[in-house]
Amino acid sequence: MDLFLKSAYDEACLGRDEGGIPIGSVLVIDGEIVGRGHNRRVQNGSAVLHAEMDCLENAGRLTAEQYRRSVLYSTLSPCDMCSGAALLYQIPKIVIGENQTFQGPESYVQSRGTELVIANDPGCIELMQKFIASHPELWNEDIGEE
Amino acid sequence: MDLFLKSAYDEACLGRDEGGIPIGSVLVIDGEIVGRGHNRRVQNGSAVLHAEMDCLENAGRLTAEQYRRSVLYSTLSPCDMCSGAALLYQIPKIVIGENQTFQGPESYVQSRGTELVIANDPGCIELMQKFIASHPELWNEDIGEE
Repeated sequence: MDLFLKSAYDEACLGRDEGGIPIGSVLVIDGEIVGRGHNRRVQNGSAVLHAEMDCLENAGRLTAEQYRRSVLYSTLSPCDMCSGAALLYQIPKIVIGENQTFQGPESYVQSRGTELVIANDPGCIELMQKFIASHPELWNEDIGEE
Repeated sequence: MDLFLKSAYDEACLGRDEGGIPIGSVLVIDGEIVGRGHNRRVQNGSAVLHAEMDCLENAGRLTAEQYRRSVLYSTLSPCDMCSGAALLYQIPKIVIGENQTFQGPESYVQSRGTELVIANDPGCIELMQKFIASHPELWNEDIGEE
């Protein structure tokens, strides 16, 4: 697994071990991780801190120029909200661990000029499959489904 | 001004009085405000708590069914991130104070089935015009521009 994707995966495992939704993310600039995070719905009672949002929040206030040479890594295909955050800050590239258990608005994001790399990593897929099977209500809540 | 838009405007004024970016939001279900918030970039050093995100966070964990009969009010046209949050939760209607000083991806949001009501309220426009004129760098940071 790509080293940075592995760091996102480690964040997802941290979230799982806290009893949370196992999705992780890191933000990389010039080959260095400047922010990392994982889904905080369960831990913080948060409706907005998906992994990518937590990662961007933890990276702090960056300049437009910094975002525009960054790469966002996420273990799962970013949802509408997280894709929107990447578009807002014009993050040029997103590396996605997998899009088999969930797929965000990838075509739209690409149409706006963002490069997507889909790893479909077996470890990322297994992590989500196990979670969705064991906590379907929590998963549906996180993606706005009934 | 619409009563709920006025509540969003009051949130924007609260943010301004805290030295922050003057954008406010409320979430309404069945005629009652269930969440309110304002931009927290300055106050919290936040990269993700735009007004609508702060409002959704303060509303707490809601069910899909609750979001689907809610109305999101914002003093300003929601950016890519905040529009994405509304799409994630399938919020069916957004009332926008104004889209003259900034315009988010309104056509895309409408193409996904969301109803947009644009008030273009003079008070909302004036609030943003004054802020952008006096704090252009802060404003550009908030919308990912240089």
